[in-house]
Amino acid sequence: MFDFAHSLKFKEKDIDLLTVGELLVDMISEGYSDSYEYSMYHRYFGGSPANIAMNSKRLGIRPLVASAVGNDGLGLFLVEHLQRAGMDTSCVQHVNEATSLVVVTKSKSTPVPIFYRGADYRLTYTEELRSALLRTKIVHFSCWPLSRQPVRSAIEQVIRDARRNGVLVCFDPNYHPALWEKGEDGVKYIKTILPQVDIAKPSEDDAERLFGKDTPENQLQKFLDLGVKLVILTLGKDGAIASNGQETVKMDTLATQVTDTTGAGDAFWSGLYTALIKGYPVRKALEFGLAVSAYKLQYTGAVVELPELETFKTKYQI
Amino acid sequence: MFDFAHSLKFKEKDIDLLTVGELLVDMISEGYSDSYEYSMYHRYFGGSPANIAMNSKRLGIRPLVASAVGNDGLGLFLVEHLQRAGMDTSCVQHVNEATSLVVVTKSKSTPVPIFYRGADYRLTYTEELRSALLRTKIVHFSCWPLSRQPVRSAIEQVIRDARRNGVLVCFDPNYHPALWEKGEDGVKYIKTILPQVDIAKPSEDDAERLFGKDTPENQLQKFLDLGVKLVILTLGKDGAIASNGQETVKMDTLATQVTDTTGAGDAFWSGLYTALIKGYPVRKALEFGLAVSAYKLQYTGAVVELPELETFKTKYQI
Repeated sequence: MFDFAHSLKFKEKDIDLLTVGELLVDMISEGYSDSYEYSMYHRYFGGSPANIAMNSKRLGIRPLVASAVGNDGLGLFLVEHLQRAGMDTSCVQHVNEATSLVVVTKSKSTPVPIFYRGADYRLTYTEELRSALLRTKIVHFSCWPLSRQPVRSAIEQVIRDARRNGVLVCFDPNYHPALWEKGEDGVKYIKTILPQVDIAKPSEDDAERLFGKDTPENQLQKFLDLGVKLVILTLGKDGAIASNGQETVKMDTLATQVTDTTGAGDAFWSGLYTALIKGYPVRKALEFGLAVSAYKLQYTGAVVELPELETFKTKYQI
Repeated sequence: MFDFAHSLKFKEKDIDLLTVGELLVDMISEGYSDSYEYSMYHRYFGGSPANIAMNSKRLGIRPLVASAVGNDGLGLFLVEHLQRAGMDTSCVQHVNEATSLVVVTKSKSTPVPIFYRGADYRLTYTEELRSALLRTKIVHFSCWPLSRQPVRSAIEQVIRDARRNGVLVCFDPNYHPALWEKGEDGVKYIKTILPQVDIAKPSEDDAERLFGKDTPENQLQKFLDLGVKLVILTLGKDGAIASNGQETVKMDTLATQVTDTTGAGDAFWSGLYTALIKGYPVRKALEFGLAVSAYKLQYTGAVVELPELETFKTKYQI
């Protein structure tokens, strides 16, 4: 199915990409400082799947965000942000929990984000969500909604109905133990999800958290062995390595300037999805992923102004 | 016991005031703005009991804070803030939940705070807390820790052991339905706590949320009927009215300039406690409460630099 030289065949649908999961506020301290006195924070639109949807719209496809926010000021901020970007917010559910929030205090040492999970894990498999799923070509989700009930059940239903209806199932295995409830083996659970996934894009850290330290080739193989059909392992400055089980390709980074790595992974997904939807062969679509990621790396922020996908062709000689 | 003309007799103890409950971060938007674009927030030390403890130390007594914070950057910030003020932090518990956070986006209309409760409700009745309770003259708590388990059980144990050991039980009945878990009748529960309380200081809004709309005198009587020994109903610009069941006193505000009302109630408690501990008669202690509150109202912020209690005597002619 994922022959690198061929493009993917999608049925005609009116949504190209449905992202399901976290839509949240990132509260990030201003500048880098380890000073105790440091006390200003910026409020940002956040949540990796929502960022991918925003990027993909700018690149030229039709995404839809399915998420849950609280009936509060931060939820309103997120919904208005989507609407200002021209996004349909009909699949954003409003629930009686605080809008999920991540606080990041930047630091020269390791900045440890603090997760305040509220509305995001209250997402349910509504009739609207089911209907959107049947109308999309690709569905995307990360580990966030899998880490906790009741949204986990919603994602399980999404996967089941996606597979029954020929929707491409794409998963960001961004596993982190801090997201999981104490006492549950998140790694074990993720390994029950991977066999149902068409495309997974782990980073080296993700792979290590799931499978322990190993060579990139071995890590790829572990995902393939579990049944993932196309695995892309991103290697930071060393580019990426991808395999469909028959063929493995190694690709260099296209980045020339690295200003901020936040959102680089989401940018990769966005370029990949947009290129796949636009009918580029898988190998080219991976290059578009690297190109959009390289573009994003030049700028600060998780979501940056992206031009249409086609402009990347000449800029990055794809 | 609360004869207005007499001072309270305390046993000799090495802590004057133990505050038990919420210690949290307030993330407050900069300036007043309803603009969607508005995105800067200030991080503040917060939690009403902790503020009262900070104030009381500045006024000249020996307070101790018993709270729970997360093992994270915001918890560290709170603990360091206490330490810089010279406070003993041995009763601050460190738990595996995110440090509790309140996000307030200021607005010309009603700014609705969003509560992110984490560590604060994980406070437990440890041996350290029990030991501190037996060593204090006064114990203070608000509705926050009563709203949720397991900290509710800790407070119930605090109340029981305080009453057994002659510790004055003081309660801020700042009831708000948003704090309570859905489905539980918080008002009904608070009414089971009030009979065990020596001093309660509701605001008019608190009283209305608990008992419905009524005259100040009738509201006072409802608290007294439930068994509270001294009730102080604060009336904003109209001062306060207090009753011990035999005698009722009406006091005018001492405020001449109102810059920021945040923390005015905590300032009142702080002045009252400090004066009671320093041996002033109850009536005078109430005036010190109003004086410290009036002083605080001139400045911005929940906790302001307060001089020693005695300076208020001449400044406000007490």
